[in-house]
Amino acid sequence: MMPGPIQDIVFVGSGNLATRLALTFKQSGLNIVQVFSPEKTHAAELAKKLNTKPVSSYELIWKHADLYIIAVKDHAIQEVARQLLPEKGIVVHTSGSQALDLLSSSSLPKGVFYPLNTFSINKYLDFTSTPLCIEATDENSRNLLMDLGRRISNDVREISSDQRLMIHTAAVFASNFVNHLYAISSDILKKGGISFDIMQPIIAEVAEKARDRHPDNAQTGPALREDHETLARHLEVLRDFPEYRKLYELMSQSIIKRHKS
Amino acid sequence: MMPGPIQDIVFVGSGNLATRLALTFKQSGLNIVQVFSPEKTHAAELAKKLNTKPVSSYELIWKHADLYIIAVKDHAIQEVARQLLPEKGIVVHTSGSQALDLLSSSSLPKGVFYPLNTFSINKYLDFTSTPLCIEATDENSRNLLMDLGRRISNDVREISSDQRLMIHTAAVFASNFVNHLYAISSDILKKGGISFDIMQPIIAEVAEKARDRHPDNAQTGPALREDHETLARHLEVLRDFPEYRKLYELMSQSIIKRHKS
Repeated sequence: MMPGPIQDIVFVGSGNLATRLALTFKQSGLNIVQVFSPEKTHAAELAKKLNTKPVSSYELIWKHADLYIIAVKDHAIQEVARQLLPEKGIVVHTSGSQALDLLSSSSLPKGVFYPLNTFSINKYLDFTSTPLCIEATDENSRNLLMDLGRRISNDVREISSDQRLMIHTAAVFASNFVNHLYAISSDILKKGGISFDIMQPIIAEVAEKARDRHPDNAQTGPALREDHETLARHLEVLRDFPEYRKLYELMSQSIIKRHKS
Repeated sequence: MMPGPIQDIVFVGSGNLATRLALTFKQSGLNIVQVFSPEKTHAAELAKKLNTKPVSSYELIWKHADLYIIAVKDHAIQEVARQLLPEKGIVVHTSGSQALDLLSSSSLPKGVFYPLNTFSINKYLDFTSTPLCIEATDENSRNLLMDLGRRISNDVREISSDQRLMIHTAAVFASNFVNHLYAISSDILKKGGISFDIMQPIIAEVAEKARDRHPDNAQTGPALREDHETLARHLEVLRDFPEYRKLYELMSQSIIKRHKS
């Protein structure tokens, strides 16, 4: 008998992604049976938000859910998968950089459910446009995971482990490094006694431009114009920030090289 | 007699900023008397959008406007200011990195009118939230420029040349370099046969987070977690992009250093 659609879900993990994803599933009418975390207080906190049961020892995890979502730090996935011993259902992890076969210890169907976004425990995120990258050991599980994904997002894709690692690497540039550039920008402003909020409109505009044109068609600034006089002025401003100078030079060279006609 | 509010404006320049600013001023009921560009076709193109007169020789520039806005490439500002010989009005440039005294050739009041944003000839920009950084040689001109600024923006600030250069440097990190990271991200995705549009939701979310929290409270990713195994996987993905590897290492080190407790 083919199993029906996924309904009962056990969450393993209680961090940023686990919190956002579990709340979204609950909102979509799915049943979050349990939240597991080895840290009692963490499990209890998320379980409370979901109005479900916290568990913090492996033996107490229910063995008959439709889906086990392992949303823990990458280095802990393998060990968690080894300890989880459900009798039915699919076991998935949610990592961008880890291959599907990391879960090989279990004999049940396995998969990956990787939402491409950035998550905070305390900030609401609408999953509707968040790309969900799905992979599974078998066609049936893949279909069930894709159907599940479509309950919360309009962008559900089948993505291999290799592709997913590339997407994850690309996302580090487009999100983690971008945020770090904001932080650097705030340091430079601070030196001039200016609050970071002055950058908000330009930050929003640059992100908005990326919606409807390729970044090559949106590049502006002194490096693009090969305006060496301005580059030198900026490096002078950065004289007290040797690390940011180095980044400034490397980024500027990279822009010049890319756009050289 | 104190001069009345600024009404008649001559624009010198026809690029991204000149176009966006002139169109916004016109929309606010100001009178764009002329558009000057040494390139006849450029002047004509912008003048047509503004329904005003193009001029391409300095002698034909009207000498009795209230304001002359020099919105040209940085290296051309000084020469343009030398050739402009109005008999009244204020002469301003719009550069983030050039000091006010670059305009010293004229004996008229001078100033700077620097809008902090990124501009495209063909993309509408609402100036309402764009910070306008104002500086002037005298109090009266400063007041006139600030009143003018308030006609198009809710964020008009008096900013010195030194502060403005810092703001401009910070903006290169938060906008030009950010856009280049998007471009790098698109190169990595391309290698995996994945379209750049997959990054749009995370790009929008990272920019949105910068609206209500300091970037230090929004940082995520493998460098922050000091997840060296994932960093190594990403560097392996970047094996064909030596330049991006170098950037990846520098940015990751910088994130680790910043967030080290």
